[in-house]
Amino acid sequence: MPPFPSQFRFDLLSTDPSGARRGRVTTTRGAVETPAFMPVGTAATVKAMTPQEVKSTGAQIILGNVYHLFLRPGHERIARLGGLHRFMNWSGPILTDSGGFQVFSLGALRTIREEGVAFRSHIDGSSQFLSPEIVIQVQEALGSDIMMQLDECTPYPADPDYVARSMELSLRWAKRSQAARNPEQTYQALFGIVQGGMIESLRRSSAERLREMDLEGYAIGGLSVGEPKALMSEVLSYTPGFLPVDKPRYLMGVGKPEDLVEAVGRGVDMFDCVLPTRNARNGQLFTWSGTFNIKRQQFQDDPGPVDAACGCDACRHYSRAYLRHLFRNQEILGHRLMTLHNLHFYQELMQRMRQAIEEGRFAEFRREFLATRPHQAETPGE
Amino acid sequence: MPPFPSQFRFDLLSTDPSGARRGRVTTTRGAVETPAFMPVGTAATVKAMTPQEVKSTGAQIILGNVYHLFLRPGHERIARLGGLHRFMNWSGPILTDSGGFQVFSLGALRTIREEGVAFRSHIDGSSQFLSPEIVIQVQEALGSDIMMQLDECTPYPADPDYVARSMELSLRWAKRSQAARNPEQTYQALFGIVQGGMIESLRRSSAERLREMDLEGYAIGGLSVGEPKALMSEVLSYTPGFLPVDKPRYLMGVGKPEDLVEAVGRGVDMFDCVLPTRNARNGQLFTWSGTFNIKRQQFQDDPGPVDAACGCDACRHYSRAYLRHLFRNQEILGHRLMTLHNLHFYQELMQRMRQAIEEGRFAEFRREFLATRPHQAETPGE
Repeated sequence: MPPFPSQFRFDLLSTDPSGARRGRVTTTRGAVETPAFMPVGTAATVKAMTPQEVKSTGAQIILGNVYHLFLRPGHERIARLGGLHRFMNWSGPILTDSGGFQVFSLGALRTIREEGVAFRSHIDGSSQFLSPEIVIQVQEALGSDIMMQLDECTPYPADPDYVARSMELSLRWAKRSQAARNPEQTYQALFGIVQGGMIESLRRSSAERLREMDLEGYAIGGLSVGEPKALMSEVLSYTPGFLPVDKPRYLMGVGKPEDLVEAVGRGVDMFDCVLPTRNARNGQLFTWSGTFNIKRQQFQDDPGPVDAACGCDACRHYSRAYLRHLFRNQEILGHRLMTLHNLHFYQELMQRMRQAIEEGRFAEFRREFLATRPHQAETPGE
Repeated sequence: MPPFPSQFRFDLLSTDPSGARRGRVTTTRGAVETPAFMPVGTAATVKAMTPQEVKSTGAQIILGNVYHLFLRPGHERIARLGGLHRFMNWSGPILTDSGGFQVFSLGALRTIREEGVAFRSHIDGSSQFLSPEIVIQVQEALGSDIMMQLDECTPYPADPDYVARSMELSLRWAKRSQAARNPEQTYQALFGIVQGGMIESLRRSSAERLREMDLEGYAIGGLSVGEPKALMSEVLSYTPGFLPVDKPRYLMGVGKPEDLVEAVGRGVDMFDCVLPTRNARNGQLFTWSGTFNIKRQQFQDDPGPVDAACGCDACRHYSRAYLRHLFRNQEILGHRLMTLHNLHFYQELMQRMRQAIEEGRFAEFRREFLATRPHQAETPGE
């Protein structure tokens, strides 16, 4: 079938000797400089933040979840209220995740069929069904700028035969997704999702057959699902190379700061992850000299900021001692300030990477940054 | 003893024919136009808000709690970190509550003696002790602008003999509080607390004997403790008249919007209450046409703001449908936006009362406002 007449654009601006790419996504709701990190706004809110605060950190695009919004408050309700952007007061681009990851995380509560996936709501136990076509309809009702196909997020570990069948199913669902699009909603893009587990030949086959569909962008799914870090790194060493140079590459659900740096070095352009927001609510703070948890007793009398190298409002106005106090009291302001800091850190990290790529010194940036993360745990980000 | 050499000032600017007073409290950290409402910042944070947001609602003074800060993180720690204002990043005036209300709310966990009150921490069960002198020391360490004496918040109902003895104890504690002050901390004020239950002669005696101490201000305590609304109204009909005209009058822990309007009409100048903040987190919203709870199903498709007559950020940018969605998901942003709205409403209510007093039309304002509250429950605010 011919390419969809989308107004979505991607421009590759420059490529660093390392392979890191500097680009720009253009949507009718604004541009996104890449490499880009998308804060996660699961239920039509980036947890604890106003949209203005999210924007103030430098974020140009956020992510919403089909799974959550489909269940509550419902995509049709959001459409009646003027669409997701208006509903949540965010005027910039939004990428909506298809729900594949959430549904497959339900385990025994869901059943995969050729037609789609039946599952029970985590909210009220009601029986629900999502197909590739329904997921497109939901995202068209929400009015997101980038839609994701429904896919099966292949678990790890998995039998190679299962991985292959799962990858083929996601491919068929990609085609059904593309066929289901409303040709009049030209402001929307659709990204396909490369699966294939940790098997190079399957990743290659998935990517090549998705390329034939000439979608607006391509995601790498099925990583950061519990595999060893070395294995994720291996898959990232070859998979981006299977994807077209002139389309954005989105690594789903990754990850820690060092994971982002590694993946950008492999030619990835877009990321999302709950780490900066979720971990903030658990007291974990990301800084230019490493990560730490605010609950540690050593901070109880510490008058210094979270990160003296950071210019966010939390670091400019509040001490570690105060943030620890708020955290121990489970005060909302603690969640707010720590979320703001972490999002600010992630966006500044992306900004520094973009600059390093433009200046052709990404390898140096990468080396210096990873030196600040000498003792990271083996498991990747959520 | 001679009056304390305090830099604290109160100016009575005008009195409405109704008896409502328009005044100004002046502290070294800024002025407070009265009648004033003080948002409650129990644990060194007005829950869910940044200090900038609190200020943006029009608040000029906030309240902190000795009881909570004494237990955690500790007043000495706050002093080492530069005092309460710096700790929480609020540069305006702060009134600190003495802890009497919180300690006496502990019920079986506390024992009142002449010397002070022994109690068990609600956090870790540890044995603690507060005396009038310790409470002054704590407030001097915190560096608040208005200190409250330790008092016994007389319960309701109570035997008249108990009410009289309790009132006498609070009076003796007031004198010990005054004697314990550091004469070098002249930026601080000390307010005495009128007790005496629902008995006019005891209220009169308490007030008159506190007046003899020439304190910087006087509070009315022991109301809004479960008594019928008519009884609170009766006590408020005479107690303010026992207090000096040239000192501020602070009604502690009150209350609902209609309670504030009634009390201002009785000549009260200052208020604090957790209602606008706590009830926001329970979904209750105060508006110029009454109160409602956002969780009601009727709001699920409502594209309108909480209050079309309100100019707060929550009303300018978000629908009732969205706030209901946030509330049902217990999203922090819901708590934030609803708290912001309620605080904005309370401050605007105070502003309108101040203007009505200046223009000599408070009785008219009162009548019109109470007409928007036709079916209020009998119980007063917390």
